Parts: sequence; structure tokens; C-alpha cells
Amino acid sequence: MCVPFLNDDFLLATEPARQLYHEYASPCAIIDYHNHLSPKDISENRRFDTLTTVWLEGDHYKWRAMRANGVKERFITGNAEPYEKFLAWAKTVPATLRNPLYHWTHLELKRYFGVDELLNEKSAPEIYKHCSSKLQQEDFRVQPLLSGMKVKVVCSTDDPTDSLNYHKDMSSQAAGFRLLPTFRPDKVYTCGHVESYNAYLDSLANVSGIAIDSFGDLLAALQNRIDYFDSYGCKAADHGLECIGDVSDSQKGEALFKRVRTGGQLTLKEQRVLQGSVLIELGKMYHKKNWVQQFHLGAIRNNNSRLLGSLGPDTGFDSVGDFSQSRRLSSFLNKLDMSNQLAKTILYNLNPADNEVFATMAGNFCDGSVPGKVQWGSAWWFLDQKDGMEKQMNALSNMGLLARFVGMVTDSRSFLSFPRHEYFRRVLCNLLGNDIEKGEIPNDLKLVGTMVQDICYNNVKNYFEFK
Amino acid sequence: MCVPFLNDDFLLATEPARQLYHEYASPCAIIDYHNHLSPKDISENRRFDTLTTVWLEGDHYKWRAMRANGVKERFITGNAEPYEKFLAWAKTVPATLRNPLYHWTHLELKRYFGVDELLNEKSAPEIYKHCSSKLQQEDFRVQPLLSGMKVKVVCSTDDPTDSLNYHKDMSSQAAGFRLLPTFRPDKVYTCGHVESYNAYLDSLANVSGIAIDSFGDLLAALQNRIDYFDSYGCKAADHGLECIGDVSDSQKGEALFKRVRTGGQLTLKEQRVLQGSVLIELGKMYHKKNWVQQFHLGAIRNNNSRLLGSLGPDTGFDSVGDFSQSRRLSSFLNKLDMSNQLAKTILYNLNPADNEVFATMAGNFCDGSVPGKVQWGSAWWFLDQKDGMEKQMNALSNMGLLARFVGMVTDSRSFLSFPRHEYFRRVLCNLLGNDIEKGEIPNDLKLVGTMVQDICYNNVKNYFEFK
Amino acid sequence: MCVPFLNDDFLLATEPARQLYHEYASPCAIIDYHNHLSPKDISENRRFDTLTTVWLEGDHYKWRAMRANGVKERFITGNAEPYEKFLAWAKTVPATLRNPLYHWTHLELKRYFGVDELLNEKSAPEIYKHCSSKLQQEDFRVQPLLSGMKVKVVCSTDDPTDSLNYHKDMSSQAAGFRLLPTFRPDKVYTCGHVESYNAYLDSLANVSGIAIDSFGDLLAALQNRIDYFDSYGCKAADHGLECIGDVSDSQKGEALFKRVRTGGQLTLKEQRVLQGSVLIELGKMYHKKNWVQQFHLGAIRNNNSRLLGSLGPDTGFDSVGDFSQSRRLSSFLNKLDMSNQLAKTILYNLNPADNEVFATMAGNFCDGSVPGKVQWGSAWWFLDQKDGMEKQMNALSNMGLLARFVGMVTDSRSFLSFPRHEYFRRVLCNLLGNDIEKGEIPNDLKLVGTMVQDICYNNVKNYFEFK
Repeated sequence: MCVPFLNDDFLLATEPARQLYHEYASPCAIIDYHNHLSPKDISENRRFDTLTTVWLEGDHYKWRAMRANGVKERFITGNAEPYEKFLAWAKTVPATLRNPLYHWTHLELKRYFGVDELLNEKSAPEIYKHCSSKLQQEDFRVQPLLSGMKVKVVCSTDDPTDSLNYHKDMSSQAAGFRLLPTFRPDKVYTCGHVESYNAYLDSLANVSGIAIDSFGDLLAALQNRIDYFDSYGCKAADHGLECIGDVSDSQKGEALFKRVRTGGQLTLKEQRVLQGSVLIELGKMYHKKNWVQQFHLGAIRNNNSRLLGSLGPDTGFDSVGDFSQSRRLSSFLNKLDMSNQLAKTILYNLNPADNEVFATMAGNFCDGSVPGKVQWGSAWWFLDQKDGMEKQMNALSNMGLLARFVGMVTDSRSFLSFPRHEYFRRVLCNLLGNDIEKGEIPNDLKLVGTMVQDICYNNVKNYFEFK
Repeated sequence: MCVPFLNDDFLLATEPARQLYHEYASPCAIIDYHNHLSPKDISENRRFDTLTTVWLEGDHYKWRAMRANGVKERFITGNAEPYEKFLAWAKTVPATLRNPLYHWTHLELKRYFGVDELLNEKSAPEIYKHCSSKLQQEDFRVQPLLSGMKVKVVCSTDDPTDSLNYHKDMSSQAAGFRLLPTFRPDKVYTCGHVESYNAYLDSLANVSGIAIDSFGDLLAALQNRIDYFDSYGCKAADHGLECIGDVSDSQKGEALFKRVRTGGQLTLKEQRVLQGSVLIELGKMYHKKNWVQQFHLGAIRNNNSRLLGSLGPDTGFDSVGDFSQSRRLSSFLNKLDMSNQLAKTILYNLNPADNEVFATMAGNFCDGSVPGKVQWGSAWWFLDQKDGMEKQMNALSNMGLLARFVGMVTDSRSFLSFPRHEYFRRVLCNLLGNDIEKGEIPNDLKLVGTMVQDICYNNVKNYFEFK
Repeated sequence: MCVPFLNDDFLLATEPARQLYHEYASPCAIIDYHNHLSPKDISENRRFDTLTTVWLEGDHYKWRAMRANGVKERFITGNAEPYEKFLAWAKTVPATLRNPLYHWTHLELKRYFGVDELLNEKSAPEIYKHCSSKLQQEDFRVQPLLSGMKVKVVCSTDDPTDSLNYHKDMSSQAAGFRLLPTFRPDKVYTCGHVESYNAYLDSLANVSGIAIDSFGDLLAALQNRIDYFDSYGCKAADHGLECIGDVSDSQKGEALFKRVRTGGQLTLKEQRVLQGSVLIELGKMYHKKNWVQQFHLGAIRNNNSRLLGSLGPDTGFDSVGDFSQSRRLSSFLNKLDMSNQLAKTILYNLNPADNEVFATMAGNFCDGSVPGKVQWGSAWWFLDQKDGMEKQMNALSNMGLLARFVGMVTDSRSFLSFPRHEYFRRVLCNLLGNDIEKGEIPNDLKLVGTMVQDICYNNVKNYFEFK
């Protein structure tokens, strides 16, 4: 009477859910419009030597779980042997029961490597051998890993100073999918450390060929880079912030920039004001290019100074913050909207307590010009799991139009993470299937299936205007 | 095996739920103690010319959905023909799947017009014709629309300066229900725009016959209007605020009022203090009248300046805020309670992240004098849907006494919105039926059914002391 | 087809859930590592004269429910006869349907007294007579009540000035369980009322034999008491705060302490700084002792001044607050971690909107040194019910390692509250059983059952290092 773990109908509790998934969702191709994949690895069609490399080289989700399980750092980011590290992970896997890592791990073993066995200390040697051997095959290089998942577009995340050389290389390859850059200018307004900020501005000046002495110079340099990114097919910008910049004093941006550019320190409040000024001007440039601007809000990063010191950022010491978001977000979006320069926008929150704030804030700036013009983005990072996705889709359904949702992104650094699209689609179909079975929506598979396909593929294609 | 959409057992998943609803909840009459219906329309027993008029003339829920669906403003609030507007809505309806609008739309078509068909572009012409024709019948005028739903009391929402002439007219009609006013003095403490504030105070002085030069004069004028409202059977006041006023400095109210009354501007903080001072004094007056004071807290309104400029307030640009509520609320309620002048109070929150704050805050000021003296109000506005109601009732159950809940209000501007009471009752019975089926509460239909009837009707009747 | 209320499979909806509970969870002993039981009552092996005494003498959960039900204070904390009070409670019980009190009441009647009948006005006389008579038996004294529930360790909550005489007495008794103290120094940093603060410091000086004139003296006295508590087997400290102290200015602690110790008043901000300074120094001492430090954060207490005045604290006028937690918590834990002096730590939140902040904050400071080094504590106070527990365990599962969870505490003042461990275990097994049935985790009872036993008993034993 129990459903076998991870069978074909995984997460699909009802007959309509199964039909929706297998007949409508599963055939859809994938547009992964936000991730942190390495353009170099894609362009060079990297081959991974072991399962440790592809799984544990950069996955701070797994690192964090291992630390919580009492694994020493030597076996996580330290100098232990690859197999020792894999074994430490394998021993941790049973302790991740109910965590998305447990599902992801076994989905990836199954979908990419055909492994049905559960990973644990006992099965570790065999699985390691099997998978590491597979990874030597040509069809386990990065490009076939992606195209095998029906990926059509991949949008990487790139600094404005990036040369985009790998994107250029890829544009001449016939990989079956396109690699497009995303403009991620966080360093352009992260001005707390004056020296490193000015060093960054120097490199931006250098790459753009525009000396940056004033706020106007900065904007000119940014416009230069936006034009450059645009010429490589860029369709989107992305920003990561605790909360959106302060636009109440944006006429001060010019003076604040001058101060920091000449070595002066800004207070935290002033940094927020400068941030707001830069973001407003960027927003106008995005609008002109018809790009989509994305904002990832609410993380509290690098909480652990001791391990940040030895391991650097993005190593598993970030968490969910509880910052006030609504007023700032309203002011920011409104300022751009007042002059009719609000670009298509996707807002992602990290604290699920903000779900309804984000769901409804998006609606305030939908003006009929584009379906779902301001979007509430899919459940992100810690929320990228069944419960988080369900809450996001339920709140979106109740407070906006689920039918206009642009859907899932991996937001991942891992080339094996694309079954997360499958996961999302199963969760979506399961919600809708339950509704059908309970009589809460009509038992009309064509009506509901069309909506499923829109959320899985058509909406994102139309919204970003991918060709 | 799938339940048909919207059948007689809609939302009732278990046999006990069905019995509770059909035998206990459904027969109960309705007391709609908070809404925004037009007293004029009620008193004049308005007839609507088309389905567009009754559905789309003022319903900003539908407007918002249409904008999110990419409909141009001309077809929403603009000068398109009534049928064009209806058609734009009909095309949007399938995109509202999983939104409460989808349920409300079809419940209203079914309950009022006997229409079983789903509304979409194809069915639009027939449905429009059928319903608009029905609306010409005498029994589709406003009063029979209400009495047909077993409505016994309707409490409108009225400014202190209102003449209450329509209420007076209604009191002499035999409509089968009573129309009572609610005192909604938001303009009395909204003092950010000095000129319009003083203009309002002038009109308040005019209608009360009391010149308003001092804080004392203001209170005298308010007492005058409260007496007037009371003489028309008013039982309640209502207030809409981001968060409750600041009572830490309430002795300053007098001086602040003098300043603003003589044309001076108050800072935001000072506005909050004046607000707190006025609300405390109003609270004492309500207590003396044995009225119920209601507070709707946590909306962030008029986010979109551009469309506010062209369309005005209450047009679909409001959303959920994330303001700190607990400390201010505690101070406010405590200040009134300390002198034993805390009226019966209902607190409504808009951000569901505040559910537990509100659920437990209410309990702090229940002192045994009245059952459920301080109430946590039913799920409001964006939360007025199955998920929002369930969360509110679950939190209320766990942190207070569901049995003492005064239950549902439409809070609506639409005369077709009364099936929302049915909707609420189905959700309530479904929760209790599930509990019975799972053995989490006793399988004693009389015990549980009595509780259902209390929540649907008896509690509100006793709490407000409606005759 | 309905499951009978409170049968053997109460809360266990699936076959795997039933197996997990009956075969794995139920046999586990209990370590109740945080509660507010009276060491005096334990040591003296108190006998209760009536059911009113044991149930209503100090249980502010019940008092609060009675007030919300309209019961006058005379029958709650006043001078009514014991049976009158019991009857007032019995009449309230049916109104608590869906509240945890309904479950607790009937679980306690059933498990301790063998009563299967539902409590209400009608059954009250018989039940009162039956239970009060049982309470006269030797095996209904406090010690057998505890040991009958398989309790192995009980950690009380004690002020640093406590003599621990009752703990001493107990250590020589053969009760079948150990009574250990917990160091709860809230009064050491609650410095808002200068006079009572200094009086407390005088008593601390007195009991430690160390004159307290400087911050250094305070620390010496605290070290003295920590050593003393340690000598009685203390394994943990506990702290109750709206939010954690401010550590941004901790070098000011010394001067602030001097000011308040010589009769000066601190601002609220300064109090937070002093609090932070004391907590950091205490944290280092705990780390050295290998104790576990616990923080209960987010309550807003004593909201009702009028009834606080007549009844004192902890009488049912506390509620859920909405304070910013993440930044302060991060700074505090980081400061201790930077010098490698962060003790094992358990963080409890009262506002479920903070669930994900706490779940993820804990992960930032797990460094592999101890499995689950920083724990997110079990659902507390208002959250100690099925829905609250499920949300806590779901968020913990998704954002951390459920397998490393140290599980349940009663946090109770009542000697009849130990079925709450059973309740927690049923909820846990039900979650896991559902997952198995739906195929979301493997159908491997040994794997999952081992995890259940770890959460119920092994983890807490290993984490606290109870012998």
C-alpha cells in the first residue's frame, strides 16, 4: 500500500496529477533563466574526473549538511582524498532524510547514472565506482549533460566587468542550447569597503574604457557594459541584496558617489542611498533594453566570520534574514513606474514570512502592458523544496495569477541539478491534480494541462522574449 | 473518482463535514457585520442594468487580476463598452484558476443566476445575455438579492460626517433585514495633508454644529457624531491603519492637534502620536456605548502613484505590508484596559505572518467579562480565501478559543458577494469534519454542530448584542 | 469510518506511522531537559489533595482559556472553592475543541487516571471524585507520577542564587530518575528597574561570597555560581529574552554596569548593550563547562498591566512578539564563535514567522565539531501543539538535519504534562509515516525507526552528555 520511493509517479498522489505530469509537463523543454553555472565549463565542455568533483567541489548545500552531521572540515573543503570526501557525504546522506538533498541526491543518481540504490556508507564504494566511470564517457561531459535534459537556454550570472569570452565561444558551437549572460552588478553598489570598491570601479573603468570620476561617469560605464552584454543576447539583470536600496534621497547619489570615489567612507544609511540611486539608473537602462530585472532579497550572508576567513563567501554560512521589505520595495518600484520606466521585474524572497508581501507587491505594478509584468519569483535557495514551492505557488495562486507564472530556475552551481525542474513540475502537477480530485478546479485536463505547459515553458519564453 | 467542480459538497471532503455543513451551518441566517455596500443602493433598492455593472463597476479584485493578465486599462476602468469589459473579464477567468476569484465567480453565477457553465471567452455571450436579463427582474434588485441569502443584518461603513439619510430611509422599509451604520473615523486622524485634514475638520464641525478649535472640541464633535450614529442602531466602529497609533506620548495630542489645526505640519512620528491620542479617546467613547471597535491593520496602500493619480484610491494598488505590530498594539490595548475602558475589540491583520501575534494578543485582554472579549477577526482581503481562512482558524484554534469566534464578514463592495459566507462555512465544516474523521476531536455531531452554529450566527449576535 | 477520539492510534494516520510509534518511539525513556517543575515538590514527593490543585493551581494556559470563555477571575485565581474552580474549567473544556488543551486534558485523564469519558459540565462531578481520590494514593505522588512515565532525567530551571538544596536532597533519593538544575540567569541582566536589580545583585553577592562592585566582580560571582551548579550535575543554562543582547558595543559593558550598580538608570539601548556583554561572558563560561546554552526568544510578556498588578507575572498575559531577530542573533553567535568559545546552543523562537530564520541561523554555526552543535529547539509554548510541531519539524527537515534533532521538552509547570512527549512522538511518527506511504522517503522501517529513536532519546543523551 506504500508507494515505492522515487518511482515514476514520485510526488504525484492522484491520477489527474499523473496525467498532467506525464502528458503535459514532462515533454516540455527547459529554459533555465537563472543559475550560477560556469560559462568556462560549458564552453570547454568539461569532463569531471570523479563523482566527488561534480558533486562536492562547490556545493555548499552538501557542505552545510555535512557540518551539521558532525563531519570535520578536512573531509568537506579540506585536503582529504576525493573518495574520503565522497564517503563522508555518503555517510551523511541517511541523516538528510526529509531534506531536499535526500531527494536531489537520489534523483541525480537515477536520472543521470541509472542508479536505483540508496546512497549510504555501505553502497558508497559501488556507486562511486559506477558513476565516476560513467563520467569518463563523452556523453557525460557538460554539454550533453545539459542537452540530455532538454535544456534550450541557460542564463549564467556574470559580473559587468566579465569579458564574456566563454559566451562568445559558445555562440559558435552547436550544443543544442544557447548560453546567455546575465548582468549582475552587485559590486557596482557594494561600497562598504572603500578600497576594494574603488579597485572594482577601476577595473570597470578599464574594461569599459571610460574613466570613472563622477556618478555620471559610472552610469556611462554601466551603459557601455549593458550594451556589451546586450550584444551577446543578454535578456536579464540580477541583484542580490538584504533589501532594496533607499530611493527617498536619490538626488544625493551623485555627492555620495564622489565622496566614496575619493576615498571617503559612507555610513550604512548613506550606502543604502547610493545603492538606491544606482539601482534606479540601472533600472531605466534595463527598461530601455527590454530586459528583465531580477532581485533576490532577504539573505543574511557570511554569518560565520571564522569560517568566512578561511573559506571565503558562498561556502555554506548564509541564512534567512528578517528585514523589512515592503515599504522600500514599494518606493523603488513606484519611482521607476512613475516615469513609465519600470522594466519587467522578478522579485524573489528568501524568508517565507515575506511570501504574501512579495505576492501582493508584484500585483501593484502590473498595469496590463505585459502579462504578469511584475513577477513573484519561484521558491529560492532554502525554499527550493517541496514545502517551499507549495507555499509559493499557493500564495501566488491566491494573490495573483498562477497561470502567468514564469516558473522554475535551478539557481545552481551544479551541472547535475537539472532534475530540479522535474521536481518543480511534479510538485506543480500534484497541486493541480489534488485540486481536480477534490473538485476545487474543473476536471478539464486540457484547460489545466495548458496552464501547466505555460508555467513550465511558454510563459518564460514569451516573457523574456527568447527566440 | 474526481469530485465534480462546485457540486453540493464543494469543499466538504468527509462525511462528517457534509453533515455539519448541510445540517448545521447551511440553515443559519447571516449577520454581515462589516462590509462596504452602498447604503444608497440598498435604500433605493437598486436594479443593475448588466452583469458588467454589478460585477465590474467597482470590484478592484477583478481589476487587479485583469491587469496581471495583460488587459489594457481601457477594458478595466476605461471607456470601453460594458460588453467589451465583460468579455475582457471572461477571457481572464480561466487564468484565475486557483485564485478565489475563480470560485467566487462560479459560485455567484450558480447561486444567483443558476448558471452551471464555466465562464470563458466562448461561454461569455450566452452568460452575459442570461444574467443581464435576469438582473431586470424585480427579485434581482438589491434588497431581494440580500434577503434571498438569509441576511438579517448588514453593517455598512460610514464616515462620521455622513448624514445616515439612507439608513434612516431603510429603517422604515420592510426589507427583511436591518441596515446599520458603522462609525469609520479614519479621516479624523489622517493628518498628513494639512489642508485636506482641516477641510475635513471643517465639515465635521459643520455637521456636528461644534466649532473645532482644540482637541477638546474635536472630542466633543466626535461624541456628538457617535451619539448620532448610536441613535441609528450603530453597534460598531472600524479603523484602517498600517499599524495602531502611538500612545507613549498621548499627553502631547492636544498640542499637536493645535499645531495642525492652525496649519502646521506634523512629522510622521508626531502624526502617529496624534493618531494614538484620538484613538484612545474614541476607544473610551465606544466603551461607554458598548460598541465593538474594529481595527484593520497592516495594509500598504496606494503603492502605484501613477495609477492612483488617474484612478484614485481603492482601485487595486494596495498590498500586504510588513510592519511591527505587537508592541504598539499591546500598549494601545493596555492603556484602555488599565482604566477599565477597553471596549469589545476585533483585530484583523493583513499579513498572515502576523497571525500568531494577533491570535495571542487578543488573549491578553480577555478578562472574563465577555466571552471572547477581544477577538482576532476573520481572514481579511487577500487572506479571504480557503488557505487564508484555514490558517486563521487553525491558529485561532491552537492559541485561543475557536468556539467563541464571531466568524465571517464579506468586507465587500459587491451585492453578489454573499456566497462568501457559504464558502467560509464550508471551510469551517471541512476542518472540523476532517478532525472528526481522523479522531482528533470526538465524533459527536451535536457537540461540534453547536459550535458550528455558534460561529456562523449565535456568537456574533450575542457579541454585538443585535436584537 | 471515523477513527475514535484518542484511541491507541491517536494522530497516527498510516500503517507505517503506527509501526514507527508503537515499535520504535513508545518504548523510549524520557529525558525532559527543560521544564519549570518545582524541585521542592519533587524532592518532598508531594501529594496533591484534589484535581484542582494539580491542574489549576498554576496552569496559566487553562486560566487564559477560561478568561476567553467568559469565566470570572474569582473562579480562576480567586477565592472560589476548589470544586467551583474545577467546574468552571470543566465547563470551559468543550469550548477548547481544536486547542491543545482539549487533547492534553483528555490524554492526562486517560494516561494517569484511566478516565475515558469526555470532561464537561455533566461529567465533572464523577471525574473530580474519581481523580481526587486516586491522587491520595502513594503512586500518585510526584515521584511515581514521573517515573511511571519512564522519565530518566528532569532538568529544572533555577536562579543563580538558588541554594539547590532540593537538588541535593534528591541526589540521595532512589527515585528512578535524576533531578538536575539549569542555570537561568535572567535577573543578572534585567536592569530596567535599578532598585530591584541592585537588590538582586546584593543577594547574588551574598550567596557567592563575592562583593559585586564592578563588572569583573559580577563575572567572578557568576563563575562561582556556575561552578556550584556544575557540582550538582548541571548541564545547561537557559535564557528568556525578547531578543538577544546587543554585542556591537560590548566594551561598554563595564562602564554601564558601574553606572547602574551605583544607582544610575540605563536607556533601553544601553540595557541591551549591558545584556549583550553579560551574555557573551556567560557564554564563554558555559563553553568551558561544556554546558548547553538555551535561548527562548520572542515573547512579549506582561501585556496586561491591570491584571499583572493583581496577579503577578506568568499568569496568562504573555503573547507572541514580532521582533527582529536575525542580525542580533548572528552577531552574538559569531562573536563567541570567532574566539572558538561558542558552547553547544539551542535556539527557541516563539513567533512561527521566525521559523526559517532560526532553522537556518543554527546551520551557520555548525562546524562539524559536534553533531547538530547549534540546534533549533522544539516548538515552544503557544507553538507546542500539533500544527506548531509539524511546522517546526518540516522547516527543520528542509533546512537542517531532522535526524540530529534533540527533540521534545515539556517546558511545563505541571506534573501531569508528560504525555506531551507521547504527543510529540506521535506527531513525529505520523509525519514520517505519511512520507513513507507517499513514497517520499524509503519504506525502510529500520532506517526511519532508528532516526525516530535518535530524536526521542539518543540525540539528547549524547548532546547533553547525560550519564
